[in-house]
Amino acid sequence: MQQKGIGYANVGEAIDSFMLIKEVTKGVTSGGKPFLTLILRDATGEIDAKLWDATKEDEALFTPEKIIKVSGEINQFRGKPQLKILAVRPSQPTDDVHVSDFVEKAPVNKDALQEKLTEAIFEMKNPTLQRIVRAFIKKYQEDLLVYPAATKNHHEYVSGLAHHIVSMLAIARELHQLYPDLNRDLLYAGIILHDLGKLKELSGMVTTSYTIEGKLLGHIPMMIEEIGIMARELQVEEKEEVLILQHMILSHHGKAEWGSPKPPLVREAEVLHLIDLMDAKLNMLNRALDKTKPGEFTERMFAMDNRAFYKPLFEE
Amino acid sequence: MQQKGIGYANVGEAIDSFMLIKEVTKGVTSGGKPFLTLILRDATGEIDAKLWDATKEDEALFTPEKIIKVSGEINQFRGKPQLKILAVRPSQPTDDVHVSDFVEKAPVNKDALQEKLTEAIFEMKNPTLQRIVRAFIKKYQEDLLVYPAATKNHHEYVSGLAHHIVSMLAIARELHQLYPDLNRDLLYAGIILHDLGKLKELSGMVTTSYTIEGKLLGHIPMMIEEIGIMARELQVEEKEEVLILQHMILSHHGKAEWGSPKPPLVREAEVLHLIDLMDAKLNMLNRALDKTKPGEFTERMFAMDNRAFYKPLFEE
Amino acid sequence: MQQKGIGYANVGEAIDSFMLIKEVTKGVTSGGKPFLTLILRDATGEIDAKLWDATKEDEALFTPEKIIKVSGEINQFRGKPQLKILAVRPSQPTDDVHVSDFVEKAPVNKDALQEKLTEAIFEMKNPTLQRIVRAFIKKYQEDLLVYPAATKNHHEYVSGLAHHIVSMLAIARELHQLYPDLNRDLLYAGIILHDLGKLKELSGMVTTSYTIEGKLLGHIPMMIEEIGIMARELQVEEKEEVLILQHMILSHHGKAEWGSPKPPLVREAEVLHLIDLMDAKLNMLNRALDKTKPGEFTERMFAMDNRAFYKPLFEE
Amino acid sequence: MQQKGIGYANVGEAIDSFMLIKEVTKGVTSGGKPFLTLILRDATGEIDAKLWDATKEDEALFTPEKIIKVSGEINQFRGKPQLKILAVRPSQPTDDVHVSDFVEKAPVNKDALQEKLTEAIFEMKNPTLQRIVRAFIKKYQEDLLVYPAATKNHHEYVSGLAHHIVSMLAIARELHQLYPDLNRDLLYAGIILHDLGKLKELSGMVTTSYTIEGKLLGHIPMMIEEIGIMARELQVEEKEEVLILQHMILSHHGKAEWGSPKPPLVREAEVLHLIDLMDAKLNMLNRALDKTKPGEFTERMFAMDNRAFYKPLFEE
Amino acid sequence: MQQKGIGYANVGEAIDSFMLIKEVTKGVTSGGKPFLTLILRDATGEIDAKLWDATKEDEALFTPEKIIKVSGEINQFRGKPQLKILAVRPSQPTDDVHVSDFVEKAPVNKDALQEKLTEAIFEMKNPTLQRIVRAFIKKYQEDLLVYPAATKNHHEYVSGLAHHIVSMLAIARELHQLYPDLNRDLLYAGIILHDLGKLKELSGMVTTSYTIEGKLLGHIPMMIEEIGIMARELQVEEKEEVLILQHMILSHHGKAEWGSPKPPLVREAEVLHLIDLMDAKLNMLNRALDKTKPGEFTERMFAMDNRAFYKPLFEE
Amino acid sequence: MQQKGIGYANVGEAIDSFMLIKEVTKGVTSGGKPFLTLILRDATGEIDAKLWDATKEDEALFTPEKIIKVSGEINQFRGKPQLKILAVRPSQPTDDVHVSDFVEKAPVNKDALQEKLTEAIFEMKNPTLQRIVRAFIKKYQEDLLVYPAATKNHHEYVSGLAHHIVSMLAIARELHQLYPDLNRDLLYAGIILHDLGKLKELSGMVTTSYTIEGKLLGHIPMMIEEIGIMARELQVEEKEEVLILQHMILSHHGKAEWGSPKPPLVREAEVLHLIDLMDAKLNMLNRALDKTKPGEFTERMFAMDNRAFYKPLFEE
Repeated sequence: MQQKGIGYANVGEAIDSFMLIKEVTKGVTSGGKPFLTLILRDATGEIDAKLWDATKEDEALFTPEKIIKVSGEINQFRGKPQLKILAVRPSQPTDDVHVSDFVEKAPVNKDALQEKLTEAIFEMKNPTLQRIVRAFIKKYQEDLLVYPAATKNHHEYVSGLAHHIVSMLAIARELHQLYPDLNRDLLYAGIILHDLGKLKELSGMVTTSYTIEGKLLGHIPMMIEEIGIMARELQVEEKEEVLILQHMILSHHGKAEWGSPKPPLVREAEVLHLIDLMDAKLNMLNRALDKTKPGEFTERMFAMDNRAFYKPLFEE
Repeated sequence: MQQKGIGYANVGEAIDSFMLIKEVTKGVTSGGKPFLTLILRDATGEIDAKLWDATKEDEALFTPEKIIKVSGEINQFRGKPQLKILAVRPSQPTDDVHVSDFVEKAPVNKDALQEKLTEAIFEMKNPTLQRIVRAFIKKYQEDLLVYPAATKNHHEYVSGLAHHIVSMLAIARELHQLYPDLNRDLLYAGIILHDLGKLKELSGMVTTSYTIEGKLLGHIPMMIEEIGIMARELQVEEKEEVLILQHMILSHHGKAEWGSPKPPLVREAEVLHLIDLMDAKLNMLNRALDKTKPGEFTERMFAMDNRAFYKPLFEE
Repeated sequence: MQQKGIGYANVGEAIDSFMLIKEVTKGVTSGGKPFLTLILRDATGEIDAKLWDATKEDEALFTPEKIIKVSGEINQFRGKPQLKILAVRPSQPTDDVHVSDFVEKAPVNKDALQEKLTEAIFEMKNPTLQRIVRAFIKKYQEDLLVYPAATKNHHEYVSGLAHHIVSMLAIARELHQLYPDLNRDLLYAGIILHDLGKLKELSGMVTTSYTIEGKLLGHIPMMIEEIGIMARELQVEEKEEVLILQHMILSHHGKAEWGSPKPPLVREAEVLHLIDLMDAKLNMLNRALDKTKPGEFTERMFAMDNRAFYKPLFEE
Repeated sequence: MQQKGIGYANVGEAIDSFMLIKEVTKGVTSGGKPFLTLILRDATGEIDAKLWDATKEDEALFTPEKIIKVSGEINQFRGKPQLKILAVRPSQPTDDVHVSDFVEKAPVNKDALQEKLTEAIFEMKNPTLQRIVRAFIKKYQEDLLVYPAATKNHHEYVSGLAHHIVSMLAIARELHQLYPDLNRDLLYAGIILHDLGKLKELSGMVTTSYTIEGKLLGHIPMMIEEIGIMARELQVEEKEEVLILQHMILSHHGKAEWGSPKPPLVREAEVLHLIDLMDAKLNMLNRALDKTKPGEFTERMFAMDNRAFYKPLFEE
Repeated sequence: MQQKGIGYANVGEAIDSFMLIKEVTKGVTSGGKPFLTLILRDATGEIDAKLWDATKEDEALFTPEKIIKVSGEINQFRGKPQLKILAVRPSQPTDDVHVSDFVEKAPVNKDALQEKLTEAIFEMKNPTLQRIVRAFIKKYQEDLLVYPAATKNHHEYVSGLAHHIVSMLAIARELHQLYPDLNRDLLYAGIILHDLGKLKELSGMVTTSYTIEGKLLGHIPMMIEEIGIMARELQVEEKEEVLILQHMILSHHGKAEWGSPKPPLVREAEVLHLIDLMDAKLNMLNRALDKTKPGEFTERMFAMDNRAFYKPLFEE
Repeated sequence: MQQKGIGYANVGEAIDSFMLIKEVTKGVTSGGKPFLTLILRDATGEIDAKLWDATKEDEALFTPEKIIKVSGEINQFRGKPQLKILAVRPSQPTDDVHVSDFVEKAPVNKDALQEKLTEAIFEMKNPTLQRIVRAFIKKYQEDLLVYPAATKNHHEYVSGLAHHIVSMLAIARELHQLYPDLNRDLLYAGIILHDLGKLKELSGMVTTSYTIEGKLLGHIPMMIEEIGIMARELQVEEKEEVLILQHMILSHHGKAEWGSPKPPLVREAEVLHLIDLMDAKLNMLNRALDKTKPGEFTERMFAMDNRAFYKPLFEE
């Protein structure tokens, strides 16, 4: 199969490929016949699929996290594509396909991300900030390199969080060149730690949801607490840097309505908020436009105030 | 002089009493003559005062935190009362007046407040919540019994915080009787701790302002961190009670716009928010109506959405 | 059948019980076969049900307000439970089931509610307020004891209005003990009359909807008019109490956006608003949490700003 | 004196004319000398005036509602004109000046307004609406022809309310011609009664303020009650016209935030709201532009969303 | 068949008439059978229709813009009427039906609209304004007389734009009589040009959608540019009238949130905005009430803040 | 005098320096003596000054745009510094001071700004965009290099607009390196033209105010028109680049409430908006923090949502 992947498939196309089952729901037609609704995914996106006249065996075979070989055709249902399954079987060892082939991943690999992070920490000169950052990197190293940055909207893929951090560090480095008054160490520390609370707010790397703690506290207050505890362990809790760093994390959503009880009140906190916005928006826009033809609009993007963006023709 | 105090004085009245200097500003008249603008206070309120033709000696004598004997008359200036000082001298040891006589205090004394707190803790049955509350009471005992609950608006007097807590505990006790599904221990713990972060957010008991930490983090995130650290010290950090208690503190302002990144998502958190509102509003209303004549309106109250309240005539 | 009732039923369960038909809609499957969609209810809740292959006889038999014996199984449809009817028959006299068995009722009976109301009126000392309240109770006695307080959200069951009033009176009694400045008679009168306009705004006790008058005027202005007319009948229209009482009713929703053209401008009006909120919210929360397992969240509650509430595990 | 009046006076001009004292405040200069601040008015506007070195006799002579002969010059003070009084004396009988000369009046006289009202009522065909309108006109005839429509912003002059009603009737008559589906009787009745509650909301015709009843209830709910009582007196309370008329009054501010608990839900209610807006805005704009030179902007107008309007040059 | 048209059809009625196909979507039933969903329309409205068991021939025959003879019955589907097609055939030349019979048209014909426009321009006296208006009428004459004023909500029918303009001119003429300070020429010019940008914002007269230019710029900025270019062509770009006219177009939506970067700052701009509102609202209300029975409410109207309007009974 | 300038002066300091008169107002003391209020400025800031006992000669000598030699002392007046003038004289030719010494200027000189602009245009590859940009630069070259970017808030100094453009171009260049999907030519063209409408919206380079055209249309619609006219002159009006460029200018304020009738709907439009925010905010923050001591807060900054920013101590 030479398809680009399900994220690029159009209505009317035939499909014949391996996909991962993300969710399964049983249904009954008005004629009383059972069917399965599956959400299938590969590394490029997701699609709703219908398996009509499903048997008890089908129900037992096709469960979440399984990989299947599926052929069918893509119809339109209520304005969205839907896959009608014509043939399906579970994957076999000889197929040589793996769950990790079916999840979206950052375009940069883990080693490269790790290296970029190390490089940034190496550039830092303020010992207090550097020690705190190092301690957190060490504590969360494993998860940090694989977690998504969010459950949806932007960087919602494997290693998304690290990818987001590394892109933000690159912007910060350039802004510091253009506006040398900026304190680069503060920016670096704020960028690396700003979303680390998500490692405890989100349940995991693949089928990501919110933990109870995440729902009741949220990643921002959880991270304020973590920095406080870490600063005590490192015996730097009296340093002003700790307070400023906590403030940067606390305020990085920019406004109370967006989850920051204090707005940015330190220059680098304001800049952290703007860099976060810039990278998150470009990540969403670039990926949506990549799936859009010149002269057309993307789908409406919830996290971009529900706007649909136009891809100009003249660039072709 | 048998006046009720400056908070009850009317335009046109003569004044002859001791007062505390809160602030002093130097000015020069258009004729080039120096004068002093003083903010004076006693236990019932504050007034702006003018000392015309002030000498260098006056400047040296009349400084903040000093007590003075002052006589003068109350004029109207831009719609607000202003004291024109006719005679003034510093207080002397033989006057037997003390700074504590000139600050507003809770209508219940420290011992009674302490007793009510102890009583509530004694009623608690959940050991985790009780231990955390006890530990905080011990840590902050001294400040807790003297701090105001706020710099202005409600309970903004000595022991105001403890007075607010004790009133809220009384409401909680009755609500628990009426709605026995409520978890009283959670309510008590939430009430006692909800504003404890203010002990670090506010600079002190008398001329209260915000600390840097208070401005950059605010009392709510500071308290989340404190509970986290305290729970570790008591080795109960894995208990669900800790998470729920942190959530109650985090959400007690009710809405993101009002400083709570999460709204109440636990029943007792919602009730804590409502009891807090109820007691704060009644404190403001009762004190404002106490200074208002029947058939008239109070001054506009900023923290009550800028409303002026009417005091009915028929109650006389 | 030992089920707790349809409000507690889970997907996958079999159902075999009596239920009341609330609504019926005819439909046709894509294969052209007729079916009926019924909304069924018992005293604990409602469910959508499907009767496939419905005959003309079925259509004639199964109409709103009829009681049926139904067996079937609960499926999931678009994330909500749906009952697939396997067998159904109309109830018969020998079944000894009655419409009143299938509507939700206040947990306190009419006589007890009546008694609590009488008790509160007896406590009142202000003759004007007492006479007005007595006259309204007499005028609306019958409906007052059976109407719901609303069509949905809180106290939306038989005798819900009286239940809401009686709970609010209990809170008011306690608050008056804790804050003796409050005028208890005003609070009692405001509480008893605040929602009485709903008796004309809502169409009835069971399948409640809005009257034309209710839609065009709303219960608040209707009640202002009623109090004015009643005061004339009792020849007390010049008393200030009447004005204050009208103001309390007018302002009890708290804000213009919520239907009160004037916000509370009298202390007891503000307290009435807060007690109303407190009781309405606790009614909603207690009933929703009662149907939720520890460690889980309730459904999103529209009238609680669309929040889902968590039921802690540690209370078990 | 050939001045157009104080509303048209410019900074730098000398003044020598009769004016009415609206308010007086005593003050003391920093040099200890007493002075009077007077708000003076004539039929075209108001001005702040200063009488320096005021004697006890001055204080006794120059009190509100007195007419004075004053000469002085207009200075600028904090961006607003201020009259420095050089000479002043009370008016004498021989001056032949009267309070009514110094208040702003509608540009149409009472008799003409009365005639237009009678004409409109005569056009009405629906007996219920006509009887209600007639009864109210009879009840309030005296005040209706002299009251202002508001304390400020639009039609805030003697006979302003009747002037506003008569202008709105003229618009309604034309709209009914252009859109014959409109029910003219409903529109006329709604227009005549829509602001009649202001006769009880405002304290009087000249130095107008809000009554207690006006502050606690507002003219809209007061008028709903009045219509209800009047309908009973006329024994038409069961007619649908009464309900629709009450709805029109209730909704004529258009939105809950603007004081209408129900938005317009009947076509003529919506049109009443729009006609009210149209006439109020044109009244404000025409009067403000009348005092503005071509090529310049009016002062900011609070009731026009704080906009300043431009008067084009090309129209000259 | 003597039906009034599909806009007046009720659930349960049989249909047998010619209709125009607006849209077609293919679907597959759960049993795997193909069907067609058609949106059909006549001059009075639209309806969803289902053609079950559709063949390949059906798909080829029934395409958008085709006229068909259809019989069937109207069912209810999710609360909205849906036509079940029992028999259908394409129209034939002998049927003598035309696309123009199936689109909604203004109640006034093109010639009459043209005449009214000419009349208004003839009344204008300001040469600059008159020349600009004439030039635009000439440029857009053809489209201006057939375009709708919008894709939905108000005047969304053939010649809707011209109908809207002509109605607004009639209101303006009357307002100018009542308030002679108004500059009639400015009003006329503003009214005629205010929505002319829609001729480029909307794709056409029948199945109207937004052009790319319409989506990226919107009709208001497009018209500002057009007036600027036209003024240059007429060599009047230095006249103040051009600036005022551009301002009127720019501000005619009234508020920034509604698409006007500047609010009205000239009297006639404010009046243009109000007349636009008045005519658009009356157009929507009259058409909705025309389809509503006395004593009932219209459907909720999105562009009227989602209100449903009541049609009084007493008018019958 | 070795002062850093008036922007850095503290209360209590003596002043002896040359300053430029920005505004003059005459006043009269309560004792009847004339005085002058002057707003004086140098290259670092402004101050209010009082010249007591001003003579007619003073009035004639000290007029706006004059340079004076002034000595005096800085007092506090209503919380803001005020200069009491002790001695003053007009500057003389021998003083060798010039108006241009007393206005704030960009930290980069005109030639350098010009060069940076030329460099960016040279990098552009799209001929349509490049030609349009070149044509505008040529048309406005003189003003573009000296105008401020705003009347207040950010880049409100001589050459402020060009400085803002050049800083934004530098950010765009770096972002294009990091996110190569971005169309650099579009970004460059959007940045250079985005605020060019201000050259017609603002009255001039020094005492800047809004033109009538600026008030009635605003710089955004004015620039849309200008681009349209320029595109016609260059005969590229049919190119899609023109539409996209107009959209970028139109949407660069981000939201309708902020003056953009369309939000950004093209990727580069969104990025233009973000770069504009980033540079404007950093300009404001850097300049405010430069005047603030470590450990203190800046004044509240209106254009930063009225926040006061903290300058950390640890950076010292």
